[in-house]
Amino acid sequence: MERLDSGLAFLLQYENIAWYEDGAVRILDRRCYPRTVSFVTCKTHEAVAQAIADMVTQSAGPYPAAAMGMALAAHECRGRSEAEQRAYLKAAADCLSHARPTTAKRMARICEQMLEAAELAFRSGADVAEAIKARAIEANNSRYGKIAKMATYLVDRFPDDGTILTQCFAETIVGMMLKEARARGKRLRIFCPETRPYFQGARLTATVCYEMGFDVTVITDNMPAFVMQTEHVDVFTSAADAICMDGHVVNKVGTFQIAIAAKHLGIPYYVTGAPDLVHPTVDTVRIERRDPKFVLEAMGVKTARDGVKGYYPAFDITPPELIAGVVTDRGVFDPHDLHRYVADGADAYEVVV
Amino acid sequence: MERLDSGLAFLLQYENIAWYEDGAVRILDRRCYPRTVSFVTCKTHEAVAQAIADMVTQSAGPYPAAAMGMALAAHECRGRSEAEQRAYLKAAADCLSHARPTTAKRMARICEQMLEAAELAFRSGADVAEAIKARAIEANNSRYGKIAKMATYLVDRFPDDGTILTQCFAETIVGMMLKEARARGKRLRIFCPETRPYFQGARLTATVCYEMGFDVTVITDNMPAFVMQTEHVDVFTSAADAICMDGHVVNKVGTFQIAIAAKHLGIPYYVTGAPDLVHPTVDTVRIERRDPKFVLEAMGVKTARDGVKGYYPAFDITPPELIAGVVTDRGVFDPHDLHRYVADGADAYEVVV
Repeated sequence: MERLDSGLAFLLQYENIAWYEDGAVRILDRRCYPRTVSFVTCKTHEAVAQAIADMVTQSAGPYPAAAMGMALAAHECRGRSEAEQRAYLKAAADCLSHARPTTAKRMARICEQMLEAAELAFRSGADVAEAIKARAIEANNSRYGKIAKMATYLVDRFPDDGTILTQCFAETIVGMMLKEARARGKRLRIFCPETRPYFQGARLTATVCYEMGFDVTVITDNMPAFVMQTEHVDVFTSAADAICMDGHVVNKVGTFQIAIAAKHLGIPYYVTGAPDLVHPTVDTVRIERRDPKFVLEAMGVKTARDGVKGYYPAFDITPPELIAGVVTDRGVFDPHDLHRYVADGADAYEVVV
Repeated sequence: MERLDSGLAFLLQYENIAWYEDGAVRILDRRCYPRTVSFVTCKTHEAVAQAIADMVTQSAGPYPAAAMGMALAAHECRGRSEAEQRAYLKAAADCLSHARPTTAKRMARICEQMLEAAELAFRSGADVAEAIKARAIEANNSRYGKIAKMATYLVDRFPDDGTILTQCFAETIVGMMLKEARARGKRLRIFCPETRPYFQGARLTATVCYEMGFDVTVITDNMPAFVMQTEHVDVFTSAADAICMDGHVVNKVGTFQIAIAAKHLGIPYYVTGAPDLVHPTVDTVRIERRDPKFVLEAMGVKTARDGVKGYYPAFDITPPELIAGVVTDRGVFDPHDLHRYVADGADAYEVVV
């Protein structure tokens, strides 16, 4: 897991992605970044799963976190019989995969890859934890390579002095997109909705854009339609927590209503990521409901009075008719035509966020 | 200015609306309500204007605040010559009207009524401040009467066990609507978007709904489309800061994108209020830009890193094609046909929020 690029923002450098070493996994705590730069140290794979459930990391962060959590699990059961280690790792994979329900299938796929690495280590007599760590790094580097390609197709869609609207924190693609835009001399103006309740847009996306030298403006989540209407927004773009083969996109709640408004205003919505064969239709996706208390507070301060209820669906579903294109590592696809991505030989099981 | 109703929520009782007495105007500070119940005491009419600009009160709150501010201005210039008092009151009316740009025309209309009351007092030799205060109370009671009628037409649109989505804090109409629904035995379920950056929905609307005994749920501003799609919302309703004669509605930013989503999902949007003859077309409305710092913080805690910009348009504009009906004190009007409201003899200059 090399540094993405020495010029890339702090948040995206590998030190800040989950890292297994000396019997622990260290994860940057995105819940308080950038106000505070602190790390959560997990001494067990269960603690890694809990950190994922607690939103210590998010977007693509949980995938390397889970992979490194598997290395930690191998460390935990070292010295036991091979059969016992296999059973332990299988249970760990199950625990890590289900840390968050909406991405469980993708997480399971990552953990499966780590189980394969463990099998090879058993056969060759290599250190299992180190073998899993190496595989986690390899998977992440492969992901980085695909996202760099994706970024070239996405930036193709931006005018030279374009205005872009984002949603939530789209992890690596944000950094890759900005790096690509900079390389081509495209001077983007970027609007980031703050993304309640965790403020990923205000805290994470805006920070990365700023640190990479772009003109970035935070807006509240009730402003995207007005901003698209009045600020000459050229493209609305987001990543996705799942891109179903039927063209439905599952992403941070709010994506759906921005996509509706973008369509109404004639602004194209490009979603980045790879179609998920594990989700042939949207019916296979379970929308995660998180603790309502987060909706009743902001930056830790309570907003509503006692007795008032909150409701917190973490994601929503955008149908294909609202999507101008799915930007993959193999080009831009019509959301109604995603089987072509797989037909082209791509591995639609691989996680590319 | 009688109590609305002893059963109505605290926030809507007259003690909590601006009140002139003993050379000062006292205004409930809505910026911290309901966490803290405190009042701002203004000793000059300029301080009242500043309190309005600073969002101590909002929604319809500025109208009685400005009216009471005129009574305070009369108190300030008492004992001077009539000509001097006239000039002083005229300057005060100008100062108070322009406290917030988007509602300047409505505010001017309220202040004019207070100047008329002052004229009558000059002629009859009555105490000018008391005469203005009496007129302010009369104007507010007239407003309450109209809003009670409006509430009957609005509640007609709700099913018996309906689900309603609100936007921001629609002042008196919220209380009147709930009182009417309760009288008719309609058990409403209410979703309130929190309304960033000031959280009026979470803090004010939800509090009133809860205190009046309704099932109320706060959501963040990125959830309305998902909630409308999945929670069987029957009606989206809001008040308006201006209803232009051409059917365009100016209201708290976010209204536009909820209206787009409602239309997309086949859910009617009913806006309450009276058409404004002072706004023959939407071109006469100036959208207020407020201090961007409020977008870069939440409940007083900074969200974005230093250097990141914010943008804070306070209102947006919803075009008539997204509006199912304008609910007035004289019935529900097609937004394309608002001249009928005035043709019916209604005073479209009067502020009804």
